[in-house]
Amino acid sequence: MDRQRVLSGMRPTGRLHLGNWMGALASWVELQEAHECFFMVADWHALTTGYQDTTGLRDNIREMVLDWLAAGLDPERSVLFRQSEVKEHAELHLILSMVTPLSWLERVPTYKEQLRELNGRDLATYGFLGYPLLQAADILAYRATRVPVGEDQLPHLELTREVVRRFNHLFGEVFPEPAGTLHRAAVLPGVDGRKMSKSYGNFIALTADPEEVRTKVQAMVTDPRRIHRADPGRPEVCDVFVFHRLFNAENAEQIAADCRGARIGCVQCKKLMAARLNEVLEPVRRRRAALEEDPELVERILEAGAVRARREAAATLRLVRQAVGL
Amino acid sequence: MDRQRVLSGMRPTGRLHLGNWMGALASWVELQEAHECFFMVADWHALTTGYQDTTGLRDNIREMVLDWLAAGLDPERSVLFRQSEVKEHAELHLILSMVTPLSWLERVPTYKEQLRELNGRDLATYGFLGYPLLQAADILAYRATRVPVGEDQLPHLELTREVVRRFNHLFGEVFPEPAGTLHRAAVLPGVDGRKMSKSYGNFIALTADPEEVRTKVQAMVTDPRRIHRADPGRPEVCDVFVFHRLFNAENAEQIAADCRGARIGCVQCKKLMAARLNEVLEPVRRRRAALEEDPELVERILEAGAVRARREAAATLRLVRQAVGL
Repeated sequence: MDRQRVLSGMRPTGRLHLGNWMGALASWVELQEAHECFFMVADWHALTTGYQDTTGLRDNIREMVLDWLAAGLDPERSVLFRQSEVKEHAELHLILSMVTPLSWLERVPTYKEQLRELNGRDLATYGFLGYPLLQAADILAYRATRVPVGEDQLPHLELTREVVRRFNHLFGEVFPEPAGTLHRAAVLPGVDGRKMSKSYGNFIALTADPEEVRTKVQAMVTDPRRIHRADPGRPEVCDVFVFHRLFNAENAEQIAADCRGARIGCVQCKKLMAARLNEVLEPVRRRRAALEEDPELVERILEAGAVRARREAAATLRLVRQAVGL
Repeated sequence: MDRQRVLSGMRPTGRLHLGNWMGALASWVELQEAHECFFMVADWHALTTGYQDTTGLRDNIREMVLDWLAAGLDPERSVLFRQSEVKEHAELHLILSMVTPLSWLERVPTYKEQLRELNGRDLATYGFLGYPLLQAADILAYRATRVPVGEDQLPHLELTREVVRRFNHLFGEVFPEPAGTLHRAAVLPGVDGRKMSKSYGNFIALTADPEEVRTKVQAMVTDPRRIHRADPGRPEVCDVFVFHRLFNAENAEQIAADCRGARIGCVQCKKLMAARLNEVLEPVRRRRAALEEDPELVERILEAGAVRARREAAATLRLVRQAVGL
């Protein structure tokens, strides 16, 4: 694969969980091996749904970036920065807003869905509707060509591509059409069987201690039809098996066979899983502990990243301003 | 009246006409006598409806600012600047968008009206809906306390005030609620009887030459029931009389009486008006001609203005970021 420019971001939700890791962070760590990567703390995005309580934002940013580093993001190779420190995102968002039909935003599937799900949080703001357009600005400020996304984010990327086509058609070729790279892992189940999510409280933190990992794995949902130890199990409907596949790949086939043949019970299977998970997480926990020693580290990294990000975004905005005649 | 901070702006439409002068510019010139004024070339706003043809934007800005200066705006006393050179407007617009309910923007009366009027120009963009919120950001970036407006802009100012109350309620007192100052003059009729407007082509330019002024005034609409010279006229329905009241105040009463008594005909009345208008416009034309001698003047003024504007807007944004926790 050619060297590409990659842009992605996460809302600063504090410490990450295994769903974030498998969902995006692992892909990021992989992408930085071969590509020029910009990874952003999406703090303006956090305001779209969380503006009523932003007291923890600063801490949440620090905790999240420490997890990024612990998981293997390298601030020398990748540009790690805070969105709100690069004003060009806001400027580009404003300029793109002038050429983006309202209907394109209204028909984004996540829009009405989130409106429904987060009911009561007073979400129907102008900024909430414009959320995917701010994402477009995030990507296009760097003229990124590749964007790692989860499946649920594909419509947002498609909107970005539509905006690119329209902008280029009106003002000349300024932006490349970014392509998506789906995260390696599908959605990770949480300990209650729903998608692992901070807001559901069903997560295992990336830096959970060994005891917590064991307790949480014990609570996980297995094949509901396997009631007795002697019943054959169905790994394909078992949440614990999803974890075996991801974190214990070399033994997964054997475990599946043993489950189907009732040669292993759920309790034992979970113990194996928890032990394996602790093995995988141990180096992450260790790195994280070491990184915490330096209280200024995250700030320094984000400041240096903002300088590099700003340089690229400013160059893009010069082209944009020229193109639109400003 | 206390010294207040004033913010207002105009889209860069090129040379101004008498409607712009009486509608806003005259008020600005008056306000700068007693207040701290920020007057902005609203070039981002120009993109909301004119993004398909921005080729003339640079020239339009120069022409308009020359007219500002010719009409008496003083760049020493007032801060004259280009909106797009102060990125804080875009940043504040983005932050305000997070707390502004969509419904507040949808119900702004000018929104649906303009959608209807400018039909076919593909206006239903996200940015067009957010137009009044960008105005709010323009005002609030300077924590302005007074905003000169035409009557049609009052709902926009009310939106700004609502946004202020909501923001302050959520994050603490950051913004004052700006008050409106209505322009002295009502809407000026154009030479075809409709409101004077660039897009109707019915205007008299602020710097029209004497011959053009005479021709245009001759074309103006008078009392339609006064068919013969001997018929008595009704100044209260005569467009020419609107001009007498504004530009020829000391003789207006006499002219009204003569019209009602059929002692003066429309042709003569228009000649008087044109002569008077040329008297009033002569010093403006002269100043404009002198200003044109210096081809760098406008650029210099706008650059210096941007520095002053940025200083104030940056101070506001520091408060805003702190308030929202960024």
